[in-house]
Amino acid sequence: MKTPMHVETAFEGHLFKVQVLSWTDQQGQTITREVVRHPGAVLIVPVLDSDTVVMIRNHRIAVREELWEFPAGKLEPGEDPAHAAQRELQEETGYEASILDKLGEFYTSPGFTDELMHVFEARELTAVGQRLEAGEQIQVEHVSIERALDMIEDGTLRDGKSVAALLMWRMLKERKRLPEESRA
Amino acid sequence: MKTPMHVETAFEGHLFKVQVLSWTDQQGQTITREVVRHPGAVLIVPVLDSDTVVMIRNHRIAVREELWEFPAGKLEPGEDPAHAAQRELQEETGYEASILDKLGEFYTSPGFTDELMHVFEARELTAVGQRLEAGEQIQVEHVSIERALDMIEDGTLRDGKSVAALLMWRMLKERKRLPEESRA
Repeated sequence: MKTPMHVETAFEGHLFKVQVLSWTDQQGQTITREVVRHPGAVLIVPVLDSDTVVMIRNHRIAVREELWEFPAGKLEPGEDPAHAAQRELQEETGYEASILDKLGEFYTSPGFTDELMHVFEARELTAVGQRLEAGEQIQVEHVSIERALDMIEDGTLRDGKSVAALLMWRMLKERKRLPEESRA
Repeated sequence: MKTPMHVETAFEGHLFKVQVLSWTDQQGQTITREVVRHPGAVLIVPVLDSDTVVMIRNHRIAVREELWEFPAGKLEPGEDPAHAAQRELQEETGYEASILDKLGEFYTSPGFTDELMHVFEARELTAVGQRLEAGEQIQVEHVSIERALDMIEDGTLRDGKSVAALLMWRMLKERKRLPEESRA
């Protein structure tokens, strides 16, 4: 019989908190798991035309590297993911989208965190100006789909959520669940 | 001018630790980032035949859900990723692979963690018996590629690293960088 789970908050930060969960399993063994509680996030695949997407080169403190990524960001408390997607798209790339469609969602690393990534496609883009937050260093790039796939293959594009999102977007296109071109 | 970065360890666990980084940017503003330091991990796409992969249904405490995933697990200190891949493949699925090829690597969520996921393809599989660790609840399933893609599309497969890995594997196949069938 499982015992009730004991939950201890071990760290409480601005972005996330850490809980240590412990319980006794059927064999009487005490199991402990460390979990990062995250508010969830959004990622946007901004489609400029049928062959081109907008990507960013993002200096990431956590890995001390500049990574190729799609624009993304965490949810504010109570924020609707579609709203967050419009906000992050504009802040990071300077584009506003007339059409925003949800492609899906996934957990980024469910072995230790509950972070859920909501993935959107953005189309009919209008340039309105980037608005970076303090501490952000981001370059905006227009990238052909073929080049983005090359970058996955050669290891240049190594942000997991962006790899998953681009290849999901492409698969859904192939399966004709997405319009062939923007309804401009 | 950037000031030197201040690093404070805020949590030290068995799986990961949390550091709070702070520095002063060019505008004189103090920037703070919370970072989860992770040992890195491996994921294996076990290919049973040209049309079928081995997947697991994994009860994940962090998200309180059973997720469809590929076998995966964290690196032990100093462990070679290929060794970890063979170990996790056997522990979680009960298969041993004669051929293991690296497909690539990606960061799972570089906005807050340095976790790097090493992705392997495993072929020529032999059943030798599952060896689960304490606290693991894992079911092994044989899944056709088409069904796995359906599961991405309908949201049944929502483990981001597994979505990225399957679609990377498929893209590399299409681009003929992987053998068409196992060399059994």
